[in-house]
Amino acid sequence: MKNYIIHHDWKIVEEGFVPEHNRISESIFSIGNGKMGQRANFEEKYSGDTLNGTYVAGIYYPDKTRVGWWKNGYPEYFAKIINSTNWIGIGVAINGEELDLAKAKVLSFKRELDMQHGLLTRCFVAELQNGNQVEVCSHRFVSTVATEIGAIRYTVKALNFDGELKVTPYLDGDVENEDSNYDEKFWVEVARAVGGPEGYLTVETLKTGFQLSTGMWFQLLKNGNKVETDITNGEREKYIEASQSVSVEKGDEIVVEKFSSTVSSLDYEKEALPEKAKEAVDLAVEAGFDALFESHKNRWLQKWATSDIKIEGDVAAQQGIRFNIFQLNQTYSGEDERLNIGPKGFTGEKYGGVTYWDTEAYCLPFYLSTAPQKVARNLLVYRRKHLEKAIENAEKLGFKNGAALYPMVTINGEECHNEWEITFEEVHRNGAIAYAIYDYINYTGDKEYLAPMGFEVLLGISRFWSQRVNWSVDKEKYVMLGVTGPNEYENNVNNNFHTSYLAVWTLKYTLEAIDYLKKEFPFLFEEMVKKWKFNELNETARWKDIIDKMYFARDEKRDIYLQQDGFLDKDLTPVAELPAEDLPINQNWSWDRILRAPYIKQADTLQSLYLFQENFTTEELKRHFDFYEPLTVHESSLSPCVHSILAAKIGYQDKAYEMYLRTSRLDLDDYNNDTEDGLHITSMGGTWMSFVMAFGGMRVVNNKLTFNPFLPESWKSYGFRIDFGGAHLEVKKQRELFLIINHSAVDVAATVWGTEHKIAGNSTLEIKK
Amino acid sequence: MKNYIIHHDWKIVEEGFVPEHNRISESIFSIGNGKMGQRANFEEKYSGDTLNGTYVAGIYYPDKTRVGWWKNGYPEYFAKIINSTNWIGIGVAINGEELDLAKAKVLSFKRELDMQHGLLTRCFVAELQNGNQVEVCSHRFVSTVATEIGAIRYTVKALNFDGELKVTPYLDGDVENEDSNYDEKFWVEVARAVGGPEGYLTVETLKTGFQLSTGMWFQLLKNGNKVETDITNGEREKYIEASQSVSVEKGDEIVVEKFSSTVSSLDYEKEALPEKAKEAVDLAVEAGFDALFESHKNRWLQKWATSDIKIEGDVAAQQGIRFNIFQLNQTYSGEDERLNIGPKGFTGEKYGGVTYWDTEAYCLPFYLSTAPQKVARNLLVYRRKHLEKAIENAEKLGFKNGAALYPMVTINGEECHNEWEITFEEVHRNGAIAYAIYDYINYTGDKEYLAPMGFEVLLGISRFWSQRVNWSVDKEKYVMLGVTGPNEYENNVNNNFHTSYLAVWTLKYTLEAIDYLKKEFPFLFEEMVKKWKFNELNETARWKDIIDKMYFARDEKRDIYLQQDGFLDKDLTPVAELPAEDLPINQNWSWDRILRAPYIKQADTLQSLYLFQENFTTEELKRHFDFYEPLTVHESSLSPCVHSILAAKIGYQDKAYEMYLRTSRLDLDDYNNDTEDGLHITSMGGTWMSFVMAFGGMRVVNNKLTFNPFLPESWKSYGFRIDFGGAHLEVKKQRELFLIINHSAVDVAATVWGTEHKIAGNSTLEIKK
Repeated sequence: MKNYIIHHDWKIVEEGFVPEHNRISESIFSIGNGKMGQRANFEEKYSGDTLNGTYVAGIYYPDKTRVGWWKNGYPEYFAKIINSTNWIGIGVAINGEELDLAKAKVLSFKRELDMQHGLLTRCFVAELQNGNQVEVCSHRFVSTVATEIGAIRYTVKALNFDGELKVTPYLDGDVENEDSNYDEKFWVEVARAVGGPEGYLTVETLKTGFQLSTGMWFQLLKNGNKVETDITNGEREKYIEASQSVSVEKGDEIVVEKFSSTVSSLDYEKEALPEKAKEAVDLAVEAGFDALFESHKNRWLQKWATSDIKIEGDVAAQQGIRFNIFQLNQTYSGEDERLNIGPKGFTGEKYGGVTYWDTEAYCLPFYLSTAPQKVARNLLVYRRKHLEKAIENAEKLGFKNGAALYPMVTINGEECHNEWEITFEEVHRNGAIAYAIYDYINYTGDKEYLAPMGFEVLLGISRFWSQRVNWSVDKEKYVMLGVTGPNEYENNVNNNFHTSYLAVWTLKYTLEAIDYLKKEFPFLFEEMVKKWKFNELNETARWKDIIDKMYFARDEKRDIYLQQDGFLDKDLTPVAELPAEDLPINQNWSWDRILRAPYIKQADTLQSLYLFQENFTTEELKRHFDFYEPLTVHESSLSPCVHSILAAKIGYQDKAYEMYLRTSRLDLDDYNNDTEDGLHITSMGGTWMSFVMAFGGMRVVNNKLTFNPFLPESWKSYGFRIDFGGAHLEVKKQRELFLIINHSAVDVAATVWGTEHKIAGNSTLEIKK
Repeated sequence: MKNYIIHHDWKIVEEGFVPEHNRISESIFSIGNGKMGQRANFEEKYSGDTLNGTYVAGIYYPDKTRVGWWKNGYPEYFAKIINSTNWIGIGVAINGEELDLAKAKVLSFKRELDMQHGLLTRCFVAELQNGNQVEVCSHRFVSTVATEIGAIRYTVKALNFDGELKVTPYLDGDVENEDSNYDEKFWVEVARAVGGPEGYLTVETLKTGFQLSTGMWFQLLKNGNKVETDITNGEREKYIEASQSVSVEKGDEIVVEKFSSTVSSLDYEKEALPEKAKEAVDLAVEAGFDALFESHKNRWLQKWATSDIKIEGDVAAQQGIRFNIFQLNQTYSGEDERLNIGPKGFTGEKYGGVTYWDTEAYCLPFYLSTAPQKVARNLLVYRRKHLEKAIENAEKLGFKNGAALYPMVTINGEECHNEWEITFEEVHRNGAIAYAIYDYINYTGDKEYLAPMGFEVLLGISRFWSQRVNWSVDKEKYVMLGVTGPNEYENNVNNNFHTSYLAVWTLKYTLEAIDYLKKEFPFLFEEMVKKWKFNELNETARWKDIIDKMYFARDEKRDIYLQQDGFLDKDLTPVAELPAEDLPINQNWSWDRILRAPYIKQADTLQSLYLFQENFTTEELKRHFDFYEPLTVHESSLSPCVHSILAAKIGYQDKAYEMYLRTSRLDLDDYNNDTEDGLHITSMGGTWMSFVMAFGGMRVVNNKLTFNPFLPESWKSYGFRIDFGGAHLEVKKQRELFLIINHSAVDVAATVWGTEHKIAGNSTLEIKK
């Protein structure tokens, strides 16, 4: 837990230079545009503690697996979105001494991330060892319009000296990952060229053979006038630079404008890359910093117009929720169906930038509500494109006949994870991917997505469930043995409620999909039957049998479902009675102790109850919440949002607010002391859900919008923006009033506190309460 | 599975040089003397595929843990008995060309391990690239009398050439482990000295700081006469050599006699090591090869006199069982209570040469029956010396108040294993260590071992069990959650029968020990109460409650105990019905599939039934055997022996013989294709058990010897030797006759087929059947 970020409605602000905070701030002040992104590393040299990170979406390296004890079925590698060519670098030397904040005396320092406009600013005054004082201000952004371009305006003012200032903009592809399994470098050089203020570097990843061309161009201005002194170039393998010196007098202001482009073989032929990099740089040079920024800023303003959340009466909360929305929009723009959302986005190495079930469970709702329909759809298409790999993955584990198991962790559809209790057993992820199809169709009404993409995925997953259960002669029921639920503080358990419930639900939903296809797309369905060798009669007969006879462990006395077999054998002391020094248990208890304790890392049984809340009475939800919540330690950032939503649903408003607060400023306050590794991007989706679904009580049921809003006591009002059914809505809750403002011409209906209302185009619904 | 070892009563023989078999033969032909040992590497250079291995008992390196995903409680390192200074090396150059069997043409090749006398011989004829043919014979042993000494007689005969022969005996400490986690070398040089035919090298392990001094001396004989040509010395870091050349004519026979000594800081002050190494070498030189071998050979003959097993009518079986006995005696001599038995002994790197529960469960019975009482006792003392570390280990996992958890894998008492489902959960090992105390006392009658050493260990273990169980409100019983039994194809299960049964047994036995101590050693007991802060009243009250109310899962229909909760939910298809290509499942199935299947890697419920067979009726044993045996895949070499013994007990003689055969030639025939990694030393103890306890039906009940022998149909007779109650017995089974020959002056009693007999000193009991 830290508390150094200054509260502000629209900005993230840090004042004063604390080297111990540097890695944390590098994460928090990260910028990205969905295509690429980077940690808030310094332009000038920094010899202090730092994690350099420049990431390009989709460019990965398969780092050979390293485990203690090999288990059959482990993947050969872990794919990692890797640290790539650093394009921000600008060496600065003043009278021969290199500017380096680890060595200079930092007299003042301020970092600012303007979320409204997508601009990172860093200003400081430093005194070098030679006594020269400079005031430096850097402005940096990666364009959300021209997504290959990054731009820097770097100003140096001579405060107390005359002499020579030398700047050295460079491109450095000789970079590495801190988390490399075998201390290898992942990049080799393909080509480099440098001349005058311009330079290009093309590098290629080992094994995967991705190529990346990065271009740069810069100009030097002195008090607003272009400096025309000689430029000296330097180069070595995977590195180019251009140096220019200028004489300065006290008070002079030198500006370096550096533009870069990053293009890859994901988008262009390899041969064309250097040329494409040059074209992009030329475009940037022609436009200039201000015009580039203007278009970028306007794009951000548009994004905010559809996704902002306003909170009156709590600046910290306001800053927190906007930071989440900002980072989600920086991470994924939905324009490329080959891309997805890594748990850390472009902000660190941890989890390798690869895709988990987090995307479907915690991020999809945000993009569904705040971005064009295509964006959420592309997240689904991403999985459809991996279906064949998911079938291969299941085959490796002994499944057959087109059963699909989506990987726990992936970038290209192949499993990368290597911990048996997760990789092989945390199979509820398959259900999350099926549910996402339902979620998307339920929200958008785009049922045609089932024909055929949605259906194909559902078929593969249903076949998996059908094979994954077995008949228990003893119980005369189908059982699902040896699984790990979302609560990873239990491993290899039998009959995890969430997994089994999702399995049964998937089978039912697939049967519905079949009915729909047979009716609406009979020819297409026949094609699918052939393509997937689908024995409808036999396969669906088994599915129906499983639906009828699936086993769920219950506590009859408490009248609740049990998380898994044997749960009641545990010592059920609530978390509140644990000694404070034992928490978090994942830092204080050995793994076996965690496993035999009842404590729940993140919503598990409650995850199903949240997803399928319409299938349960409020009393049922309450009984389960009252049993499981006191046993939940919320040691995953993905946990509190679900509890918050359910708490709101059953009328526990204080609890809903308490749960919301646990993740709303997770990274800004470095709540878990791990922000230095990168931001919890997917958890930010959960926080958004928690806001809109807990406070707003928003829920889409049968493609119909419903709200059960309440206003946390400490706030004056809140408002959020969503798209639904083609309409753009602003939803506001004030102390005594609830409003839905329809900013579009499209009529829309919404049920509020149980009553259905029509909201005509460009009108406002006002309800007192 | 290979089949190239030639069958012979007393010798292991390989003929012909097959480089692909080299690593396997290096394991099989290993020699050792309990203090040190080595793989059967060649003396002369060999550039082909080889695993160099020279190991000194107790000299280890803590290799930093490398895992994929860290879990709380994992140890920092894995201790490894490491490859150390190679003292066998003798470079041979003939007319300037180095002899190297990977490059020469091998015209004949024979390796022979004389188990009766402990001598490794290798003879070959090779033609070098220069056309020179040599006949080489090497004889090598590590003395079982002067255990610091190794001796080599290496003969080279010039078959078809005249010219110059150069030999270069050397010591090489610049060695590494193939399994080094971080590709480090573990040794640094302390000192080296070389002059004339003599040299010394002292090296030290990183981190642990063990020092090892190795000395060498050699002489060269030509046709029996000492060669007096100049000796040239060479040296570099961690390496010394001495070269001597001699001119030869066709037919000349050159002999190199090389003696070495290996002394370590385990036994001497570091400063004294070089001197001690020299003293030992001098002693060897003075005695000479023949005298050294004579004493060594006689020691082996003595060992055979107390431990041999003879089989008439089956040479392969005879060779197999003697090989096991030979290797067990090579690995552990019981003279040093700091040492123990690594699963691979001195024959390879795998499992790091560290100690597992294998020692107590599978090796102790062999040493109890065939070696002086002190030998088995030292295995117990080894664990007593680690009690404080076992208490620390338990504390790391959250236990308190003196609860002890012995490590899964250790060398110095600290846990080295790093796989949570084993390290933290395979806690039945604690029971094996408690049972070993009972086993020793039951066999030897040395009940005083309880006062205090045995009791202290039992107390720590009982405290562990007492804390490891918890009360299930639901079941109104004590349960043991989250354990892994001996069957490692189940992980993190609840209420594993074997573990829970052992826990209850330990508590009962500790209560008995307390009664005994209070009666026989009241003052000592009072001291123990204080020393261990033993609250007898409260602690034993809880133990008694656990004994009364422990939960065991049962199948009431079949009237058997279940291996664990939920076992009946599995698909119980017997192993015999699996497709052949699925076996072994550990090579063909993914881990999750193995876990949810019912297949048993090694005796688990049956392990308890074997240990405590007197607590069950034969019908009960049969019911359990009939249920579990068909589900057992025996993919651990420690499994068949237990099944063999139980099968014999319930009258399934064919099954007993079948199970015996599965491990009797495990390494000689490379049954599991892994002999190249080293020999399955601890499994050899199991094979011995299987012989004596299944065929001999030998069992000690209340310190009384019993036999229920039978003779497998394909054999003419067998006989084994045991020590019991101070007597030395030869037990023989012929087709129609059973004999116990008492080779000592001590009277002894034995129950045979239910009838008790007295066998007076130096007499024979004969029973027809």
